[in-house]
Amino acid sequence: MCQKVKPVQLDVRILARNDNAAAHNREHFSERGVFAVNVMGSPGSGKTALLEATARAFDDVRRVAALAGDLATDNDAARLRRAGMRSAAIETVQACHLDAEMVHHELHHFDLAGVEYLFIENVGNLVCPAVYDLGQNANVVVLSVTEGEDKPLKYPTMFAKADLVLLTKCDLLPHLSVNVSAILEALGRVMPHPRMIPVSPLTGEGVADWMGWLTA
Amino acid sequence: MCQKVKPVQLDVRILARNDNAAAHNREHFSERGVFAVNVMGSPGSGKTALLEATARAFDDVRRVAALAGDLATDNDAARLRRAGMRSAAIETVQACHLDAEMVHHELHHFDLAGVEYLFIENVGNLVCPAVYDLGQNANVVVLSVTEGEDKPLKYPTMFAKADLVLLTKCDLLPHLSVNVSAILEALGRVMPHPRMIPVSPLTGEGVADWMGWLTA
Repeated sequence: MCQKVKPVQLDVRILARNDNAAAHNREHFSERGVFAVNVMGSPGSGKTALLEATARAFDDVRRVAALAGDLATDNDAARLRRAGMRSAAIETVQACHLDAEMVHHELHHFDLAGVEYLFIENVGNLVCPAVYDLGQNANVVVLSVTEGEDKPLKYPTMFAKADLVLLTKCDLLPHLSVNVSAILEALGRVMPHPRMIPVSPLTGEGVADWMGWLTA
Repeated sequence: MCQKVKPVQLDVRILARNDNAAAHNREHFSERGVFAVNVMGSPGSGKTALLEATARAFDDVRRVAALAGDLATDNDAARLRRAGMRSAAIETVQACHLDAEMVHHELHHFDLAGVEYLFIENVGNLVCPAVYDLGQNANVVVLSVTEGEDKPLKYPTMFAKADLVLLTKCDLLPHLSVNVSAILEALGRVMPHPRMIPVSPLTGEGVADWMGWLTA
């Protein structure tokens, strides 16, 4: 259940509890030598397709793993397993975002042996996931070219917290009246350090650049 | 701010307060003879483009009006005004959905004279708007073909509450490996009375069917 909550004290208390769990997750990742990435974006923006392409791009797929959050179904985790990536679903039922305790709980059951990169695929939502720290090392926002040019301005919190924006489905650009430079300009107005890589898991465009950023 | 809130009593209290305001809005619409539609969907699914096409499809655009919710910017309301539709923006700032009180507050300033259809374009979000009654007469969910086939199964609450699903951006189907019958099949598993109209505001496909449904 997603709420606009008053009084503000409750926000503070819930977020403080989340931050404690996130700090715990962060320690866990650090001890294990795991680089954790919170992958966020709208429903259908192409988060899972991006991670499938990422699995294929690694020399040894055992170096990567994923936790995939959704209200219902384990479709995404199943897709990632078919791409060779160790993965588990976190069903959030009514929650519109993952929180650090959900991730912490899942980590108790999840085998991270040999894993260097853990992708936490959040619930498809450009608002709520941005305010819940999961203990990740980086925030990656997946934005599809079909979503139009002004999403960074309309969902500023999400993009302000992004370390990297992956502009997906670029293979569709010839069929759209979308201007990539307008998206970049919008990102420049909300991201402290604007960084965007255009990608297409379908054609492979940009996947090498994304791998370069990830492994740098 | 969006929260997974405990205890449950708080959910109940917030939703009860919302339901009171929604009932008030509903009376207001009924007295005015206004048919109010809550238009929901993911960010970039094409809600505003659909309403622009709807404005063009009416013989007299003064019969329709819109309230457009977004965290930031009044871009959508401005687009709808350029399409000739009376409209106002509701900036939700941190809230991931419209609630009945926000709509009620806006209605105090909004001129409904002569309006028969009021579209309330919700914040782009497939989760949270579904649980907040605004006092509308109908729920329409806008789903883009680019979002893939399994969204109804992954966001079941939204689709279970939909009276109609408008499948947008159908002009892109030749460029996608998306099967419309798979989307229909998924809708059949979560919608009590499945009803979907494929549309493309770009080509005009389906707009007459949508107008038929709306004015029936």
